[in-house]
Amino acid sequence: MERKTESIVIAQQTLVRLPYYVRSLTAMKAKGLTYVSAPMLAKELQLGEVQVRKDLSAVSVGGGKPKLGFSIEELLKGMRSMLGCDNGDDAVLVGAGDLGRALMGYKGFDDYGIKILAAFDKNRALAGLDLSGKPVYPMEKMAELCKRLQVHMGIIAVPPDAAQEVCDALVESGILAIWNFAPVKLSAPDWVLVQNENLAASLAILSNRLHQRLS
Amino acid sequence: MERKTESIVIAQQTLVRLPYYVRSLTAMKAKGLTYVSAPMLAKELQLGEVQVRKDLSAVSVGGGKPKLGFSIEELLKGMRSMLGCDNGDDAVLVGAGDLGRALMGYKGFDDYGIKILAAFDKNRALAGLDLSGKPVYPMEKMAELCKRLQVHMGIIAVPPDAAQEVCDALVESGILAIWNFAPVKLSAPDWVLVQNENLAASLAILSNRLHQRLS
Repeated sequence: MERKTESIVIAQQTLVRLPYYVRSLTAMKAKGLTYVSAPMLAKELQLGEVQVRKDLSAVSVGGGKPKLGFSIEELLKGMRSMLGCDNGDDAVLVGAGDLGRALMGYKGFDDYGIKILAAFDKNRALAGLDLSGKPVYPMEKMAELCKRLQVHMGIIAVPPDAAQEVCDALVESGILAIWNFAPVKLSAPDWVLVQNENLAASLAILSNRLHQRLS
Repeated sequence: MERKTESIVIAQQTLVRLPYYVRSLTAMKAKGLTYVSAPMLAKELQLGEVQVRKDLSAVSVGGGKPKLGFSIEELLKGMRSMLGCDNGDDAVLVGAGDLGRALMGYKGFDDYGIKILAAFDKNRALAGLDLSGKPVYPMEKMAELCKRLQVHMGIIAVPPDAAQEVCDALVESGILAIWNFAPVKLSAPDWVLVQNENLAASLAILSNRLHQRLS
């Protein structure tokens, strides 16, 4: 029981690091390299070598060739598939305020094959706007559009007191995975995955690390 | 060596969960409760009981009283101190674009005693603006203001190609911990903590979990 919990935790941490591997490996590939060693990757990513070997074994691409190291192409393939990059996933966003606009303009998603297709906002004055090349629709269009576009991921970027209502509307529209930025606990059916993004927690963790170091 | 790595990973995961405990415990306290049991907290937070007991032992508040459970007040005290809430930490932000504005208006920080005091932007037309009650200054004011206000945390919310320059300026201004939203690897001196926030990675993880469930 205890063991199982630990292994899940470690896999999650590996997943968080994968995008950095993908970035470094893509740069190496662009330079014409075809193989990379664990120590090279460790140095590049400022990680321990043990950690790197563990991460590489988690994407299960075999153990690398003696002297040559790991095939960059195969590593990229394994990691991209693990990150879901091959699925060409689409998402819709609710709330075209500052946070929603920031997410719509965020450059990082392209790297992982994820696209925010459109935003919805209850402020009808925003409908028809084009933000970072993506259209804004009124809330009433959500169910029809999500079903037509076969989108399964929804992003909640509305104030806390509106989040549950938006969550319900997304579920009604057939959304199966919700990325929630509102600092509230949402209630959703069992079949819907909810991932909470608590920005305040991240900064609190950094603050804690700083105080540990200074004390 | 391996063991040490694992224990750090688990502590990090506990830290990520702490804000949710604080939120639930604060709500319980507001209802007049003074003690809580591990099963109650597990149910409330939708976590396993083993996990909850482990988390509670990590904040080292003793084992709870038989029949009564854990003192809500003591748990809150331990968790708040672990999260750095008692330090009344201040931060400055660089980049008053959509993401910067979203962070300046984000409600969650107050819960953890963290305050974004001001923003800096190289666009001099933004200087003098008041965003969510916080002033925007030109970049040239950074060193002087950070030193005067004794701020040690800086947030980077600028496009990737400007991030390293901003990082250098923050370090020059005496910043000791950087929360970086730009999807690039920053190089900073050893004494500066850098925490990268890769939003794309979080969404990729959700996408991956969704595909695992659907397959």
